[in-house]
Amino acid sequence: MTDRQDPTSGEDALIARYFRPLATDPGAFGLVDDAAILQASGDEIVVTTDAIVEGVHFLPHDPPDTVARKALRVNLSDLAAKGATPVGFVLTLALRAADDAWLAPFAHGLGEDAGLFGCPLLGGDTVSTPGPMMISITAFGRVAPGKMVHRSGAKPGDRIVVTGTIGDAALGLDILRGGAVAASLASDAAAREMLIGRYRVPQPRNALAKAVRDFASAAMDVSDGLAGDLAKLCAASGVSAVIDAPSIPLSAPAAMLLARGTVGIGAIVSGGDDYEILCAIPEGSFEAFAQAAGIAGVAANSIGTIIAGPSAPRFLDAQGREIALKRLSYSHF
Amino acid sequence: MTDRQDPTSGEDALIARYFRPLATDPGAFGLVDDAAILQASGDEIVVTTDAIVEGVHFLPHDPPDTVARKALRVNLSDLAAKGATPVGFVLTLALRAADDAWLAPFAHGLGEDAGLFGCPLLGGDTVSTPGPMMISITAFGRVAPGKMVHRSGAKPGDRIVVTGTIGDAALGLDILRGGAVAASLASDAAAREMLIGRYRVPQPRNALAKAVRDFASAAMDVSDGLAGDLAKLCAASGVSAVIDAPSIPLSAPAAMLLARGTVGIGAIVSGGDDYEILCAIPEGSFEAFAQAAGIAGVAANSIGTIIAGPSAPRFLDAQGREIALKRLSYSHF
Repeated sequence: MTDRQDPTSGEDALIARYFRPLATDPGAFGLVDDAAILQASGDEIVVTTDAIVEGVHFLPHDPPDTVARKALRVNLSDLAAKGATPVGFVLTLALRAADDAWLAPFAHGLGEDAGLFGCPLLGGDTVSTPGPMMISITAFGRVAPGKMVHRSGAKPGDRIVVTGTIGDAALGLDILRGGAVAASLASDAAAREMLIGRYRVPQPRNALAKAVRDFASAAMDVSDGLAGDLAKLCAASGVSAVIDAPSIPLSAPAAMLLARGTVGIGAIVSGGDDYEILCAIPEGSFEAFAQAAGIAGVAANSIGTIIAGPSAPRFLDAQGREIALKRLSYSHF
Repeated sequence: MTDRQDPTSGEDALIARYFRPLATDPGAFGLVDDAAILQASGDEIVVTTDAIVEGVHFLPHDPPDTVARKALRVNLSDLAAKGATPVGFVLTLALRAADDAWLAPFAHGLGEDAGLFGCPLLGGDTVSTPGPMMISITAFGRVAPGKMVHRSGAKPGDRIVVTGTIGDAALGLDILRGGAVAASLASDAAAREMLIGRYRVPQPRNALAKAVRDFASAAMDVSDGLAGDLAKLCAASGVSAVIDAPSIPLSAPAAMLLARGTVGIGAIVSGGDDYEILCAIPEGSFEAFAQAAGIAGVAANSIGTIIAGPSAPRFLDAQGREIALKRLSYSHF
């Protein structure tokens, strides 16, 4: 209520200029209506929502296009882990000001990723805030009825699989904050860039969605740290797990930092922002799953086994000794 | 990444304590999964998203239960205007801290309204922010395929109808800010309370959704001011409009403030936060629409006529003279 303007208001002009070109789906009605339509089909709609906040999930000086990509990709990652095919998203953008120098690359990055992942903008809301920027996205996917992959469903004997590499994003954030990782990699710009890139722009594994849907007994994406997210999957499934820590896939820089003692395995497995898929695959399906992952071009590694019982998952070192973890995952409160 | 905790993290405990009881729909999976399901049906899903920001859409000292109700109701209002039946919503809550004294009444108000409007919580995300609180909701409704009511579709000759009364919420906000309205109503606590209540807790007209779907050629909710929103409806429909300003329905306090000259008609028709339905009804359907509105218990008044042409809608006074409006609606930027 602080500012009233004439017909072509700043807000409408902003939407028309930056976001209408992204609203390519007929159900978005060119963003000129109050609502969008998800068309009726025989499929169920999978709904997921994730927000990112300046200073918490991204940093004030992160390039705007990477902020947009991260906002969308953290949601795409959830759809992938649920075995769903993306169909579109709605965006809430809380901004301090309508700054073209920020909005133009933000919208460009968002549009590129929307195209890349087949997930068009369907609608949204743009509001002013005196505080940090926030981008909240609700994304939609489709699955055949009953085919969404849940956190529950893991059974004793299932293999535990993760995609990609674990821990890189948390190391990248440490670099951006000038922590111990930055010092350790002071002379290795390529490693620093790689880790920072993993923090800023996650690689959601939507290419693996069909394989997850076809073979996983349970799945989720790793967003708050492998250890904590595995504990959540086990709790939802009523099972426990044993992880062979040396099998956890690490990038070359992460492996080097671990070998140097710059970071411990605890920081790697409790670091957030991985956005990899964690899933349980019945032993009899593992070969077929691994083959499907290979065809999809997604690295997927077996890191342990689901076991019966109510205890927290255990991480074992190369000598089979349990690794004590100080904390399991990231929590906002 | 500022704070890592153990399995029962603060965030999970907060969700379990306050929000799981609201997740009554089977598609919410008790909020223990990463996504919710909207079941397949022959209907289309109408999607709308609206956020409210502390200091912009609500005030820091507004009662938490009214903040929750407003966050949900501004979205329910969009569904009503589109002729859709609510099916559920997802919530993004950005908080500075997990404050039980705020969260308990917030969740209570949200749960009451979710029950009242048949719109259960399906999922969400809770994030920390160093800045103002923000509540972003994406709400879902159902309509038979092709039956969503659009902003476009109004035809010359259609009656222009609004529900409820216009301008109250903006007057209520002026009171909360200690403006001229507060001074003018210094001795009338009941009027002040009524207007403040209209600002804090909108009354979405979901009871009218079926009548809108059955009879309206175009509709939207009035959220940014009647004048500006009418201009948007006309622009989307490729028509113009003439409004008989004395026909605009006003509450008794609003009419009194207008008669006293405390506020002008311009402030009334450009004030935001009305959350009434604005729709165009073909003359031949008006009787049936009015009857349906009566049965639904929603006041619906004809305030003017859609006319041909590209000009901005005109507001005429009792003498048929055009009223000059300085601004039409609220804009964030």
